[in-house]
Amino acid sequence: MAAAFPHVLLGPGDDCAAVRPPGGAMLLTVDQVIERRHFVPGTALDLVARKAVARSISDLAAMGATPWCALATGALPAGFAQSDADALCVAIKKWAEHWHCPMVGGDLASMPDAASPLTLTVTAIGVAHPSGHVVTRAGAMPGDQVYVTGALGGSFDRATGTGRHLTFEPRLREAAWLLDTFGIRVHAMIDLSDGLGRDAARIAQASGVRIEIDADAIPCHPGVADWRAAAGDGEDYELLFTSDADIPGSVPSVGTPVRRIGTVGAGRGCVARLDGGTLIDLAGLGWDHA
Amino acid sequence: MAAAFPHVLLGPGDDCAAVRPPGGAMLLTVDQVIERRHFVPGTALDLVARKAVARSISDLAAMGATPWCALATGALPAGFAQSDADALCVAIKKWAEHWHCPMVGGDLASMPDAASPLTLTVTAIGVAHPSGHVVTRAGAMPGDQVYVTGALGGSFDRATGTGRHLTFEPRLREAAWLLDTFGIRVHAMIDLSDGLGRDAARIAQASGVRIEIDADAIPCHPGVADWRAAAGDGEDYELLFTSDADIPGSVPSVGTPVRRIGTVGAGRGCVARLDGGTLIDLAGLGWDHA
Repeated sequence: MAAAFPHVLLGPGDDCAAVRPPGGAMLLTVDQVIERRHFVPGTALDLVARKAVARSISDLAAMGATPWCALATGALPAGFAQSDADALCVAIKKWAEHWHCPMVGGDLASMPDAASPLTLTVTAIGVAHPSGHVVTRAGAMPGDQVYVTGALGGSFDRATGTGRHLTFEPRLREAAWLLDTFGIRVHAMIDLSDGLGRDAARIAQASGVRIEIDADAIPCHPGVADWRAAAGDGEDYELLFTSDADIPGSVPSVGTPVRRIGTVGAGRGCVARLDGGTLIDLAGLGWDHA
Repeated sequence: MAAAFPHVLLGPGDDCAAVRPPGGAMLLTVDQVIERRHFVPGTALDLVARKAVARSISDLAAMGATPWCALATGALPAGFAQSDADALCVAIKKWAEHWHCPMVGGDLASMPDAASPLTLTVTAIGVAHPSGHVVTRAGAMPGDQVYVTGALGGSFDRATGTGRHLTFEPRLREAAWLLDTFGIRVHAMIDLSDGLGRDAARIAQASGVRIEIDADAIPCHPGVADWRAAAGDGEDYELLFTSDADIPGSVPSVGTPVRRIGTVGAGRGCVARLDGGTLIDLAGLGWDHA
């Protein structure tokens, strides 16, 4: 641990971990993954661990932050095999380090019944972009363009429980490139976990602006029926952001597409504009986990 | 928030919170509280929230740290009333601030069944004592005396679920006084969550020393049958520490008793010495939560 992550002064095993604090602002987030809510029974534990870690790392990316360290908990159904508990810990550590985020502490506990749902939490701590710019949801300004990375929809296959929600790549490199290149001109950002409709509405509300999405511009994953499905499905973990800069169509070296999908105006609310000019409220579209 | 805790740059509500990092080393811990494991059904939500916060704060105290900020999760049984969820959040925030630890983020999610156990986690972040001394479990040295604060045993009434485990006071002030007064002569420390027997054995093992406890010296709570019960019961959340300094019998201004209960020697293991000289292995005594 010491060699790879010199800021970790004391790793797991004591009452607390000890970590050298970052120079810049610290970003903090915690998220949960619950069986039969965020993944189906029988999902490989490695993918469950991956999702738990990736969700919190994605929140760091959405602020333009870089991972620093993390802590995790597992609440295990009664009778959960020790070998499975060990494998889960190994997988959580592996995935955290995959995103350069040393796992410095955690807690495993047993739940009272075998039917209790396996429940993981990951607390992730990041450090702000070296410029000091922390991209919140509240910075969108009238005149901004609205952009989204990647393509949307169909992340969680309801029939099988499989899909990108288990294998998505948190957009750390994309966010870092945006801030390296455009700095404070990246005004507002969020990672799409509850669907474009709801999450765009969150930026509009936090920023006190009106967001208008061009329905035809929404990038849909192959197999997604239409823009409504793409905007209503959740668990995309793509970045939605606003900027007054002219952002290119893909992130250099990574190749992730970036699509301009709308505009920010004065006023309030969040709507989709259809081809004929019809406006549809977007805040009502959205994803209820399981 | 900003006025009371100026290091909190951005509180709950965005993808992450933003916090100014402390000047010294950061201490990090996470712990869980699970219904029917750490508290019985019907326990007042205010006390459940209190316990969840206090357990993690107690881990900070055990390193000599001061609370800086915290995050929490709640995994709620299906059908959990919104008013109860709101009350839980208010209580978690209240208790965290009671110990000067602003709650900067969190996540609430629903569990799949009404029978799923209410499960809370609290991640607490602290800052090391101003001297820079971080008291681990690994610092005990032959020649040290072993001390414990308060009295032990009977914290969790199995029949009713009530007891000190719901109302204990994390030993922040006691730990701060110890480090203010005796500095690096406080060699090792742990908070007693799994019982004196197991936790003393943890210090012995981490430090590579032998700990001998004088059974007659163990301070028992009224109603606790004998030293075995006191050493085997868990959830005391008292501080167990070793030092080569002569520590007074109570903490000034707070009045918490401090009792010398044993010695550290060369060798390995952790034993209790009875009046007649018999030695009993202590590592096997201990507390299984529920």
